[in-house]
Order: sequence, then C-alpha cells, then structure tokens
Amino acid sequence: MAKKKELTYLDVAEVWPRLTAADRARRLKQLPPEAAHEFFFDLSAADQAEVLLMLAPGERRLWIRLLAPDDAADLIQAAPQDQRGALLGLLDEATCAEVTALLAYAEDEAGGLMNPRYIRVRPHMTAAEALGYFRRQAQGRSGRDTPTEAYVLDGEGKLLGQVALTDLIAADPGSSVAQLMRTDIVTIPEEADQEEVAHRFAEHGLVAAPVVDAAGRMKGVVTADDVVAVVEEEATEDIQKLGGSEALDAPYLKTAFSRMVRKRAGWLSALFLGEMLTATAMAFFEQEIARAVVLALFVPLIISSGGNSGSQASTLVIRAMALGEVRLRDWWRVVRREIGAGVVLGVVLGTIGFLRIVLWHAITAIYGEHYLLVAFTVFGSLIGVVTFGTLAGSTLPFVLRRAGFDPASASAPFVATLVDVTGLVIYFTMASLILRGTLL
Amino acid sequence: MAKKKELTYLDVAEVWPRLTAADRARRLKQLPPEAAHEFFFDLSAADQAEVLLMLAPGERRLWIRLLAPDDAADLIQAAPQDQRGALLGLLDEATCAEVTALLAYAEDEAGGLMNPRYIRVRPHMTAAEALGYFRRQAQGRSGRDTPTEAYVLDGEGKLLGQVALTDLIAADPGSSVAQLMRTDIVTIPEEADQEEVAHRFAEHGLVAAPVVDAAGRMKGVVTADDVVAVVEEEATEDIQKLGGSEALDAPYLKTAFSRMVRKRAGWLSALFLGEMLTATAMAFFEQEIARAVVLALFVPLIISSGGNSGSQASTLVIRAMALGEVRLRDWWRVVRREIGAGVVLGVVLGTIGFLRIVLWHAITAIYGEHYLLVAFTVFGSLIGVVTFGTLAGSTLPFVLRRAGFDPASASAPFVATLVDVTGLVIYFTMASLILRGTLL
Repeated sequence: MAKKKELTYLDVAEVWPRLTAADRARRLKQLPPEAAHEFFFDLSAADQAEVLLMLAPGERRLWIRLLAPDDAADLIQAAPQDQRGALLGLLDEATCAEVTALLAYAEDEAGGLMNPRYIRVRPHMTAAEALGYFRRQAQGRSGRDTPTEAYVLDGEGKLLGQVALTDLIAADPGSSVAQLMRTDIVTIPEEADQEEVAHRFAEHGLVAAPVVDAAGRMKGVVTADDVVAVVEEEATEDIQKLGGSEALDAPYLKTAFSRMVRKRAGWLSALFLGEMLTATAMAFFEQEIARAVVLALFVPLIISSGGNSGSQASTLVIRAMALGEVRLRDWWRVVRREIGAGVVLGVVLGTIGFLRIVLWHAITAIYGEHYLLVAFTVFGSLIGVVTFGTLAGSTLPFVLRRAGFDPASASAPFVATLVDVTGLVIYFTMASLILRGTLL
Repeated sequence: MAKKKELTYLDVAEVWPRLTAADRARRLKQLPPEAAHEFFFDLSAADQAEVLLMLAPGERRLWIRLLAPDDAADLIQAAPQDQRGALLGLLDEATCAEVTALLAYAEDEAGGLMNPRYIRVRPHMTAAEALGYFRRQAQGRSGRDTPTEAYVLDGEGKLLGQVALTDLIAADPGSSVAQLMRTDIVTIPEEADQEEVAHRFAEHGLVAAPVVDAAGRMKGVVTADDVVAVVEEEATEDIQKLGGSEALDAPYLKTAFSRMVRKRAGWLSALFLGEMLTATAMAFFEQEIARAVVLALFVPLIISSGGNSGSQASTLVIRAMALGEVRLRDWWRVVRREIGAGVVLGVVLGTIGFLRIVLWHAITAIYGEHYLLVAFTVFGSLIGVVTFGTLAGSTLPFVLRRAGFDPASASAPFVATLVDVTGLVIYFTMASLILRGTLL
C-alpha cells in the first residue's frame, strides 16, 4: 500500500553497526512491525537496552513486553544501574516477579542464563493432550524461540523426563507421555557457572538442557543459542586477561579511550612494580657486571627465555582448566609433566645458545678469552631458567584457583615478571660458579 | 529380565574420562541399545572414532550408520588417515556420496559443519502436508536431533523461506506453506569459515541456520549445538597461539609428551633466535655499559615494560579481530587509538620509574651522583618503549592478516621479542643523549 519500497530486516542489519543509538531506534520503527520485532529479538541485550532507552517512555513498555523473561532480565542487566528499576516497572506483574527472581541469580550462573518458561506436562497425559500444550504455546507467536521440547514433572515439580514435539506428532495419540518420554537426560544444576554450562553443551552436543535445583525440581531451560554467546564472551575475557589487562567487557572500538586506558594501566603498573625487583637484583650483581661486562650482554636473552617458556606453560594450563580438561586434583600430574617439558626445552634452547656464542666468537672474537666458559654459563642458565619458567607457569594457575582467584590472571606478562627476577638470580649464580677465578 | 541392575547412560558418563579405549568400547556395549546409541551420539567425533576402531570390523558398520552424514564426516575426519577409506566403505551408497561431498569442504567452513539432510517443502503445500513430512522424519527415531524447522525451496533448490514445526501445528491445516513461512532469515554462505558462522549465531541468537551457495541454492543446515563446540575450539586455538605455542589440537592431558614438546619447541626456538638479537644489540652498547654499569641495572625493567604493553595491545586487537569487531579497514582507527594509549601508559610507567629511582636513591644512595639524570633517562625511555610496544603490538596483527597469516600468531612472546631489541636501542640512545658528558 505504501508507495516507497518497504525496509526489510536485512536492510537494517546491513547498516546497523554504523548507526548512532538515536538512528537505530528510528530505523527500527521504520520496519514493518513483524520484522521490527524479529530484529529486536535478535539484538544483543546491550543493543536492546540502548534502543529501548532512546524510545519515549510510553513506547518502552510495548517493546520490553515482547521479550521472554530471561531476555528481559538480560536487557535490564545491560541497562545503566539507575534505569533498571524503571524498566522492571514496565513489565506485567507475573513477568516482573519472574525477572526479579532471575536477576537474583549471578549473571554467570546457569540460573541467570535460563528461561523460566517452558512446557510442563504430566506423565499420565496422552500424546494428544501434550500436543495441545504445544499448539497453544505456538499460537499467536512466530516460530522462532517457540519450544519444541516438553518437560515431564511430578506433583512436586521434580523432573521425570523429557518428550520432544517430534515424538508427539509421530506417536499414537492415545499413548501416554510416560511411555514416550526419555529419562536419561543431561541436567544442569542451577548454581553451575556458565563455563560449566558451556562444557556440558559442547561435550554432549546439546540443543537445550533443563536446569534443576538440588532437590531435582526443574527451574527452567537453557538453550544452545544463549550458550554460543556465553562461550564467546568467556573466551574473550580469558584472552584479555591472558594478555595482561582487565577484561574490557565491551567491544574494543566501543570502549571509551579513558576507560580502556584505565583497564590497562592497572595491570601494567602492577607488573611494572613487580619488574622493579629486577633492578634490585641487578644492583645486587653490579660488581659482577662491572668486572665482566660480557655477562650483561646475555641478560635480556636469558630472562626472556624464562618468560616465554612460562607464558607457554601457563597459557596451556589455564585453557585446559577453563575447558575442564584439567582439574585441581590433577596438579601433580601436570607439574611433573611440565618439569619434564621444561628440562627438554631448556636443553634445546641451551644448545642453540651455546652454539651461537661459540660460532659467533669464532667469527668476531668479541667474547674474550673465556668465551667457552661464558657459553657454558649461558647453557646451564638456560636449562635452569626455562625449567623454572615452565614450572612457575604451570603451577601458578593451580595456586590462583586454589586461592579462589581466576587462573586466567596468571597472564603471560605476570608469569614473565615473576620469572625475570628468578632468572637473573639463576644466571648470576651460575656465572659465579663457572667463572670464579677466571672472569669473576 | 537380566538379574543385575542395568547400566545407565549416566553411569557410563561418570567413569568415561578415566577409561581406556578398549574399556570404553566394552562399557558402551554393556548399555541397553537405546542408551548406548544416545551415548554414542553425544560423544565427540574423536571419541566416536576411537571407540569405533576398537570394535570388530563387523560391528563398526552398525554404529557408523547410526550417524547423520555430517557427524559421520566428522568421525571420519577424526580417524587416522589410513583408516578413513575403510570407514567410508561402511556407509550405504547414498550416505557415502553425501559424506564424500562434505569431506570436500574444508573442515572449518560452513559446508564442513552443516548437515546436508533437512526437511524440504514446497511453497504451495498445505500445512497438513508439510506436517506429514515432519511426522515421517520423526517416526522410528528418538526425539533428539529430529529437525523442527522445514525449508521452503523452489524448483531449482533456491531457498524461499522457512517454516517451523510449531507454526504448522498451530496453523489451520489447509493454509499454504507460502502463507506461513518466514522469509527474513539469516543464511550462511557455504564457504564462510567457522569463526564467521559462530559470529552470526552469537549475534542473532540463532538455533539453526540454512547454508546456501552463491546462487542461493540451499546446501544444508548448521545447528547451534555444533557451533558451541566450534566456538570453544577456535578460542582454544587462539589462546594457545597467543601463549606462544602451536595449537595442540587435542586436550592437554591427552597430548603425548613428545608431541606437546615438539609443538612448543618450534616457537620457543624461533623466539630464542629472534631474542639473540638482544645480545647483538647489547654488544653494540658494551662500552656504554662498561662506563656506566648503572645503566645495565634497568635493562630488564625497560625491555619488559615494552613487552608487557605490546602483549596487551596485540591481545586486545587479535581478539577484537577474531570477534569481527575490528576489520582490516579499521587499522588506522586502531593504530591512532593505540598510539594515544601507549603515550598515556608510558607516562604513567615513566613517572613510577622516575619516582622509584629518586626515592630509592634518597634512601640507599646507590645510583651515584648523576642519579637524577639516570632517572630522566629511565623516564624518557619508558615513554618511548611503551609507546613503541603498544604500536608494534597493535600493528602486527593487521600486518599478519594482510599477509594472509593468522593474526593470533602475533603472540605475547612474539611481540615481546620484537620489542626487546628496539627497547634496548631506545634506552641506550636516550642514555647517550642525556648522559653525554656526565656518565658517558
């Protein structure tokens, strides 16, 4: 009827990332209602909150009421603190109660991820009756996000089994839900953290899983589409911590400059303060350096090798922990393995270093008459430093987790800093053992 | 009928991680058939392949034929090279052709993730007819993994729309599929890589998405449960590269010691060779060090600050790239921003360093009469080194991607190594500018 061509979902999706908040709200309202609703559903909670807050207060009610309780809870959590109460007030009474219950869960627990609305059936119902439940759910909403599994609960709300819509349509209409239901189902404890939820989904290839409390009572459903976002988010946090900064909690280019610098300056300053110990250690060996300046030449090489091997070890262990491949009780297995790896890697680097000094000296003669002893000092130090680096890198994540911290804080820079000071001590001790009476 | 209590899915799941391959196969066969099949479905492709190869050749056929073509393709890809032909030969002719087609896609493309079997309907069909398709699909299999969406194709196989099972059961049986279908659907190009697939799922909260070729013909369906595993896998690879080793491609504790050491020794040796340039740079400044040993004391502090700030910058940029938040064309925006961040962070660290030297000297008087000039040298060098580190760390991922490499190879240790040599040059140049005529 309208003369100009109607905007579509994909038209808006195309330009969305480049629009301001005000333009986003305007564009969304230009879509035909159904496409606009679809589009709004598909937005991240942060984008939904942003758009919603650009609308007139009267319009907000309309949009927030489109959302399922778990999505409404996410939106409210993504909105600025001072707007949350007002947003909660836009919901109808029943939903408001559900959303308030969800907000009480930590954001990163299974309870905070789940949708408390799902299809409940009783074991003695017939397939035809159960199918009627699905039909009523589906009426009046579009196909997406309409549940395709029903959960079978007893009188106390305990989960007995699960029956799929596809099973119901294929079954004899008179057969009972108890006959049709599957009972071997993977459930998620309500207090499981979202990393654990993600592992269960990845491990079992789940599309949806029921969340239950300690008594086996069903609380809601988590679906794979929510888990995809969670897995990305968790990995991003871990990666940012591993790189030695706080998690940004927002896309890089959307993080304000001042906020980003603050998130980075904290860790960087802490690392710098730790690294100052190297100046103290170096001052301690000042006399050795003055007597044999050649020793100073290899300081960066030695300490960086310790840092690099420590980064490798800590990163591998932290990721294995995050994936649940390695648990606290595995610490001894891991540490034993890493000591072995450290020695082998130390011998490899030590040999390269030894050859480098001997060959370079043959060409340039810059390392003085005791070059062979210097080469042995470097060889021995590298074995010690790399082994120590590997050991420290693999132990630290266990220590942090045991102490209740996030193992991902044992970032590459953190381990490197820790190892640098020890590396200097190992190097100069090795030097005084080997070079006493000649260079020292 | 059997006297002893039957094993259940959860009994086996409990002990699974600790079983050998042979015990796994045995335990699986002790399960009642239905539970055994469920369990087999839920295993990772690698575990499926391992168990399958432990069975007698006659039994293998039975199990592999339980799998959908995409899962069979994954299993075959997870099996040792020399077994793949034999496994392919176990499939029926039609499935064999489908699996062969899937194996032709790169493992990490949308085409390699998709299931080529899905429910196709025509636009002129009635809801009742379309429902019949679902019913036939569902008959004779358990509810899990039975599709709940049908795709509407034209005569040439082009995708017109999508209709949900829930819409069909709620609709008037005589209404046409064309009336019921949704047409604004997010599709995935068949050659999209799996990271891109994951972003679309995360961004739009998808449960399933159709894969189409360049002409818009539908090739298959990717579902969120497959994407969860992909996202975890991609993040693990990136994290391991960021830590300065090759991706392990297997769980940490299941990677053979020798294989793990090889994966780590390569990068560590390469970094070590690069780091040797520091010894060359230090040799170049040997005279300065001999004249003013106090300069050597701050070498580890200076170069590690460059390395740490470089690690931060590269990690943030690499992750933002992996998430699609930052694209190649954004390079200038990012670099400008990072130079700003580098200067600010450099001033922060420089100030801390300056104060440390002045205060420490006031207490211990160890830095000589020119301590104030030394403090200024450290201050200036830190600004230079941190800015350069941040710049190098943020630029390198763009350079690598532009050259066709994985940006995640710009790992913390790699950036640190690159920055160490430059850091030495900046430091000693600054020293000769400030200390000429006094200490030097």
